[in-house]
Order: sequence, then structure tokens, then C-alpha cells
Amino acid sequence: MNVLIIGGGGVVGQKLAGLLARTGSLRGQPIGHLTLADLNDPAPVADAPFPVTCTRCDIADPVSVATCVTEEVQVIYLLAAIVSAHAEEDFDAGMRINLMGSLNVLERARALGTKPVVVFTSSIAVYGGEVPDPILDHTYLNPQTSYGTQKAIGELLINDYSRKGFIDGRGFRLPTISVRPGKPNRAASSFMSSILREPLNGQEAICPVDEDFPHYYLSPRKCVENLMKGAEIPAEELGQNRCMMMPGRMWTIRQVIDAMTAVAGPEPAKLIRWEAQPEIQRIVKGWRFDLRPEKSLKLGLTADASFEDNIRYYLEDDKPVG
Amino acid sequence: MNVLIIGGGGVVGQKLAGLLARTGSLRGQPIGHLTLADLNDPAPVADAPFPVTCTRCDIADPVSVATCVTEEVQVIYLLAAIVSAHAEEDFDAGMRINLMGSLNVLERARALGTKPVVVFTSSIAVYGGEVPDPILDHTYLNPQTSYGTQKAIGELLINDYSRKGFIDGRGFRLPTISVRPGKPNRAASSFMSSILREPLNGQEAICPVDEDFPHYYLSPRKCVENLMKGAEIPAEELGQNRCMMMPGRMWTIRQVIDAMTAVAGPEPAKLIRWEAQPEIQRIVKGWRFDLRPEKSLKLGLTADASFEDNIRYYLEDDKPVG
Repeated sequence: MNVLIIGGGGVVGQKLAGLLARTGSLRGQPIGHLTLADLNDPAPVADAPFPVTCTRCDIADPVSVATCVTEEVQVIYLLAAIVSAHAEEDFDAGMRINLMGSLNVLERARALGTKPVVVFTSSIAVYGGEVPDPILDHTYLNPQTSYGTQKAIGELLINDYSRKGFIDGRGFRLPTISVRPGKPNRAASSFMSSILREPLNGQEAICPVDEDFPHYYLSPRKCVENLMKGAEIPAEELGQNRCMMMPGRMWTIRQVIDAMTAVAGPEPAKLIRWEAQPEIQRIVKGWRFDLRPEKSLKLGLTADASFEDNIRYYLEDDKPVG
Repeated sequence: MNVLIIGGGGVVGQKLAGLLARTGSLRGQPIGHLTLADLNDPAPVADAPFPVTCTRCDIADPVSVATCVTEEVQVIYLLAAIVSAHAEEDFDAGMRINLMGSLNVLERARALGTKPVVVFTSSIAVYGGEVPDPILDHTYLNPQTSYGTQKAIGELLINDYSRKGFIDGRGFRLPTISVRPGKPNRAASSFMSSILREPLNGQEAICPVDEDFPHYYLSPRKCVENLMKGAEIPAEELGQNRCMMMPGRMWTIRQVIDAMTAVAGPEPAKLIRWEAQPEIQRIVKGWRFDLRPEKSLKLGLTADASFEDNIRYYLEDDKPVG
């Protein structure tokens, strides 16, 4: 099995590579080769039982895409994208990378004629606007950002390229990933990891919303487990819509902090400063959090059992040593 | 008011041009100029009270688009597309014309910075697959053709370009248009006009489905009235989703034939030969017909009051003389 992760240098790409290295197989076959491709050279994978190539790839450039999407590749993870705030600030970059970049990958796969499995990461940012709660499998995609729009278009392309037999595609709308390792970023959702990660690391963090703010979460560990399973679902079980929510769970800020306290004791929560930030609130309160991912649950994808698990996964997988 | 119809040579474009000529105004202002653009020179409009320019435009070519989408244009009707069967046979042509062509028009409008009104014709072909009946305003778009996929992508772009303030866009999903004037075409839905038009013209026609086959119809006359109203809806009433069903009505084959008999007497129906065509049935039975266009009805768009009206409109507007 020859696997390519486009966006292999990101948090999800790196964790997925680690899981593939530990598992050693995908779709019932031993992995013979893994390629991590990203705009900058991705970090290699430790202790992989198969050769790993790290390479640069700019999905906005069809020639660059052709160097990593080759006829040997059987499973392509298409994770590369510029994030929400970036695509909102730089419309052209979002169209070029998120829309045309995805199309370049699909067109290259089509040109090869090898019908690879393509696993596409969409986002719950495809939901928004005037649609009734709860969000069901058959709810209209009404994105209110360019990022969400470009992801929704990617989903339509994944479906049509699959229907035409060019690829065997699947798309999963990722919940907000928490506890995300590393540093805060400029995403409006950044605090949903920071208020846990920083205190667990003994540092202060700011919570810009009230404690009753609800959102839809998934741990990084479950996310990559689901991406692995997502490649393994038999095509015939996907039906006439190959894109679906990835399971997550709705929790309030109070619940995620209580989970941290239950796992790590009372000290971390004391490091949270409550400081209302109206601009952050304006953005995140437009998001949807009441999602019912029936289809993906039926197909064997899973959410975290409790937010205590999310905290434990962070401590086990990501907390810096020392 | 300066109006451009891209796809001005087609049945809908020509009828819309005729309605604009008879009305003389749009969005409360007298029309000062109308441009009909199409791949081939569109026919001119008779008796227009304003100058009409007929021009060639290939929306797949950004340079060609720039020649007709100019800074003077205030309302753009984007009707041009290759139809379902064509886009299914020639995937590249569908992507080039229906997807990239629409994008070329939007990008040109964005570059001008004039924020024109853009009225986009989508199709009920965006519906399909595993979604529950009836189809509501918030039902997932699950197209099962490349044409439907490309139209659904056009809708997402219309929404996002409008949200960003690049255009003032609106999209309407057209029902099957009947009674369509002219000759049969290769669309699977062609018979839904032929079984009425040919008998009304004294000619035989074949009905390939049972008389209890239901579908969702709109007359050409109502369609262009709705497209005119569609340009006139105040932007603030469109909300966070600028694309919606155009109202139609569900009728069975028996009902549309009975309507013909009620208007034109018993002779035409005798010219229908019943000849089951399994391939046609396979396609059209996958289509959706139970649609509930609440939003567009609220915004003032209308369906035909009865199918007798569709028959009368054909006799008044389109039946060849002699």
C-alpha cells in the first residue's frame, strides 16, 4: 500500500503519519511507502516500519502536484488548505489553494486513470446561515466564510469525481480539534485549545467567551483514527454521498474545564483568565455546534467518549516533557 | 439600467429579452441598453424600446467575458451552460463552461468593482441521491450528474462573492420548463414538452413513461417573469442564502395531458403513442419532484396556477403560425 499525505507537515498530517507508522497497514495491506508532502519540507516520521519520503508540494501548481501524485499512489490524503482567517483575508489565496489546489489534485488523479482512494478533509465551517438546528446528514451546506465555501465545493467535486469513477473519494467534515498541540494560532477557535493546553503546561491562558459557550469538539487522536477508518470504508457502503460529518461531541467551556480538573487536579483551571473579547465572540457565536453525524457513526467512525479523554490524550501524546 | 444576458440566444434568454423589451424597465429604472451574448450570434429582439446589442461570448474564455461584462453593465443574467446530457458525455466541456465559465464571469465582475446584480440560473438537478422527501429550502444538494454538480458549485460561488460584496448575486433552481417551444432535444426530459407541443402542432409524439409519472414543471412564461422579479428582490430580503428553488408545480403525465385536452379539445391527445423506454425511465425516475419552494414563494416568485395555463401560454406565445 502506497500512501500520500498532502499537507503532511500540519498537526493532523503529522499525527496521521505517526498512526500509520504504528499501525503499519491500511485497507488490510501492509504500507510499502509513505510520502509526506507540504509547502515546506514536512518533518519525517519516527520509527516507521516502511520508507518515508518527505517532499515539497504546492497544490496550487499542477506541475508540483504531478511530482507527488504518481501512479504508484493508492491512497491520497488531501489535508492541505489555508485556514479560515487566512482565506477570509486573502480571497485569491483561498481560491487558488483551497479550490484550484483541490481541483489540481483531482484532475491529476483522473489523468493517471489509477482511481486512487482520496480522503478529503472538509470542515464544519460548511455549516452556517439560516438552517434549522440540529444539523443532520441532509442539512443544506450554507457556509458563511470563503474557507467553508471552498471546502463545500471540494466536497461536491469529491462526489462527482467518484460518481464518474475517476477516484474513490471520501470527505469528512472535521469538528474543532482540541486539545491541539503546539502554539496558539490566529484562528478564532484557537482559545478552545489554549485554555486547556497552556494551563496543563503551567502557563496562563485567556478565555474570551462565557463558560456556557457550547461547541463541537474532537481530539486529534480520534481525528486521525477516523481518517484511517475513513480510507477503509468499502466504497459500496458510502452510498450516493461520499462526504459526511466526522463525529464529535458538543461541550460547554465549563464542561471542558471541569474535565481538565477531573484529570489534572484543580491547579490548571486557576491559570485561566476570563476576559470577554467581543470580536472573537461575534465570530464563534455564528458557528454551529448541534451536529448529528448519524451516517459516519453508522459507518464506524467515533467521537471521544468524554472530554476527560481529550485531556488524557493531550497529556499522553503531546504535553512537552520537562 | 444596462442589462446583459449571457446565454441570450437560448430559449430562456430570448424569452427574457422579449419580456424586458415589453416591460421597458428593471429594478424600477428604464432599461437604457440590453446586450444579448451567446456562443453564436443571438437573434435580436423585436420592438425593443431601447438599443439591443447582439454579441458573441465564450464564457470559458476570460478575454471574451471581459468584452461583454463591462463596467456599464448593472444587471447580468448568467444563463449560459451546456446541458445535462452534454456535460455528462464531455466532462471537460462541463467543467470548462459550467464551472470555470461561471467563475470567469464572477471574477470579471469582481475585478470591475462595480458590484453588479448577477442572476444565476441553477437547476433542480442539484437535488438527488439519498435525501428525504419532500425537498425543503434547507435540503442538502446532492447532485447525481456533473451538470448538477457544476450548478451547485455555481450557487456556492454566487453566495460567497455576494457575501464578500463583490456582486449582488441571486440564484434560482429552474424546474423542468414545459411547454418548451422549438424542436425536441437530446435531454431525457425532452418528452415532457414533446408530448404536448407536437400534438398541439398536429404531429405525433412518443411518451416513454407511464401516465402516473410525476414531475416538477414551470412554463417558460412564468420562468422569465420569475427571473425578472429575481433581479428586483432587495438584497436585504435574500438573507444568508441567495440561491433557492424557483417555484414550480408537481403534475403527473395524466394531469398534463388532461390539461391539454381541457384547453385544446380531445384531438391532440390521440396523437400520443405510449412506448415504454427503459433507459429514459431509468434516468427520469431518479429525479426529484416533490419540492417545496417556501422561500422564493415568500419573496414573490410564482408558479403556474394550473397546467391549463402552461398549455395556453404555449398556444399564445409559441405555437407556429399556419
